[in-house]
Amino acid sequence: MRIAVVGAGALGLYYGAMLQRGGGKVAFLLRRDYEAISAHGLQVSSVNGDFHLPHVAGYRQTTDIGPVDLVLIGLKTFANDQIQELIPPLLGEQTLLLTLQNGLGNEDLLAGLFGSQRVLGGVAFLCANRGEPGVVHHLGAGRIELGAWGDVPVGRLASVAAAFVAAGIECRVVADVRRARWQKLVWNIPFNGLCALLDQPVDRLLRFPATRRLIREIMLEVIGAANLQDLSEPIADAFAEQMLVFTDAMGPYLPSMLIDRREGRPLELDAIFAAAVSAGAERGAALPRTSTVHALLSFAVDSGVAADTLLLKKEAHVAG
Amino acid sequence: MRIAVVGAGALGLYYGAMLQRGGGKVAFLLRRDYEAISAHGLQVSSVNGDFHLPHVAGYRQTTDIGPVDLVLIGLKTFANDQIQELIPPLLGEQTLLLTLQNGLGNEDLLAGLFGSQRVLGGVAFLCANRGEPGVVHHLGAGRIELGAWGDVPVGRLASVAAAFVAAGIECRVVADVRRARWQKLVWNIPFNGLCALLDQPVDRLLRFPATRRLIREIMLEVIGAANLQDLSEPIADAFAEQMLVFTDAMGPYLPSMLIDRREGRPLELDAIFAAAVSAGAERGAALPRTSTVHALLSFAVDSGVAADTLLLKKEAHVAG
Repeated sequence: MRIAVVGAGALGLYYGAMLQRGGGKVAFLLRRDYEAISAHGLQVSSVNGDFHLPHVAGYRQTTDIGPVDLVLIGLKTFANDQIQELIPPLLGEQTLLLTLQNGLGNEDLLAGLFGSQRVLGGVAFLCANRGEPGVVHHLGAGRIELGAWGDVPVGRLASVAAAFVAAGIECRVVADVRRARWQKLVWNIPFNGLCALLDQPVDRLLRFPATRRLIREIMLEVIGAANLQDLSEPIADAFAEQMLVFTDAMGPYLPSMLIDRREGRPLELDAIFAAAVSAGAERGAALPRTSTVHALLSFAVDSGVAADTLLLKKEAHVAG
Repeated sequence: MRIAVVGAGALGLYYGAMLQRGGGKVAFLLRRDYEAISAHGLQVSSVNGDFHLPHVAGYRQTTDIGPVDLVLIGLKTFANDQIQELIPPLLGEQTLLLTLQNGLGNEDLLAGLFGSQRVLGGVAFLCANRGEPGVVHHLGAGRIELGAWGDVPVGRLASVAAAFVAAGIECRVVADVRRARWQKLVWNIPFNGLCALLDQPVDRLLRFPATRRLIREIMLEVIGAANLQDLSEPIADAFAEQMLVFTDAMGPYLPSMLIDRREGRPLELDAIFAAAVSAGAERGAALPRTSTVHALLSFAVDSGVAADTLLLKKEAHVAG
């Protein structure tokens, strides 16, 4: 299977590397890591064992890649305005587009531009960060849930899932991608939001009773809004507890939004927060805690408040 | 009228100075400012005109003051455990106790310890900060609303109000102190909470649309909870807009909770946030935004995150 990875951040690099190791022919659209990966290949430092891919097909533009069987889209959603230009050179008659991006609205964007019969939606439960150029750190988890967004033949969906499984990636085909997306939001909204706002790893917020309680309340608020969206089956409140336990096992994990904030990149506030709040509002549900965190983060980002000063100060305090 | 000021922070120093200038015999219980005020008197730098009191009766302990007609209590609520020891030396047969503290529960504490027939409750809408020892800055406003908590004779309540008015302080006697307290919470919860959390003066949060909207939503949430408390009359939603306009006029005001956080003092989280949330919960109202801000502030304080690093960083950025 010929695969193009568009959006080679931690998620794109990790899954792309796994797929290549599993036998896929993977082309990576690279920006920051182009030189390093062209010169030295791609290093995956993983909780499941490190590995190195000495030869990686890196490209500067998708016109140099040409049509593929599968495009794996890992762009940050704030870069979605590039999709219209990046994707067409990769499209053949049968090309499938799989978005593993966060938040709501990504599949609809792809379906509107390229036809829903090509679109797969997927949700990744992955703990990964980029290291120095040419290095990706896989810190835990990695399961993917994917499904057809439009009228994708079942056999083609199955072949994509099979490629992931063959590469050693836990992959589950789901009937209702929107439900999986909302389940991911149940994690993303509290953890990306609060960790980015307070510049804290997940474990610190989970250890402190008031923030642990707040995380649970936010999860239940998101579950409540999700269950108004005509999902194939409701998300049980118990899912919140499962996500807490799942996250407890991550240790001092830094969600991507926190890293984005530290590094001065835009945050995925629209796709994660605004989209969830407005989907809730359309069905008559307020998400007051989610809205509060969204407003606070928007302010912090807009006012140029640097996130890392807080934690650095604190670590200095712990050290000194 | 013999008056003792217990809790001579910005509020106690300002009103005490005004009352003394207006002819009251005022004794101040002093800690930080004792030496400075004993040596040089008290300087009030005020938007209404600066003035200096060369001779101020400052004391280290209330046993040196003895019985007075009125005790004006301006302690931070986290110091309320000192009240049982501080107040008795000041009590004569007729002594009235007026708490101008923030939050809920202060009058009940006084009534439980000393009898409700002595207790007046008051709410101060005052912008003031302490300067260096011996100096208090009055930045704006100053209106007091006060009323009887228990069975205080009307004439005695009126004489206290008259002393304030004679001193040039706008003072209104209200029938329902609890309603005035909740009105103050409508201001305190969003502004003390968000300004302390984000280390920002009020005007910055009012200028940014998402935080201005959040402030209004928090106000409406508090008004909703207030109107379940059997107040003499409901607080109208329009009060939120009035408070926004009132606060717009303050410019870059720093609420006391922000200053407390910067200076590493405890915050009045229990009296302001926890008390409001639990009073709401008792009547079946959730205050999700208030709870969220409370949890975030509790975390920030508990984890020793220094508030000022954020703003200093930002001012350095603006300057550089």
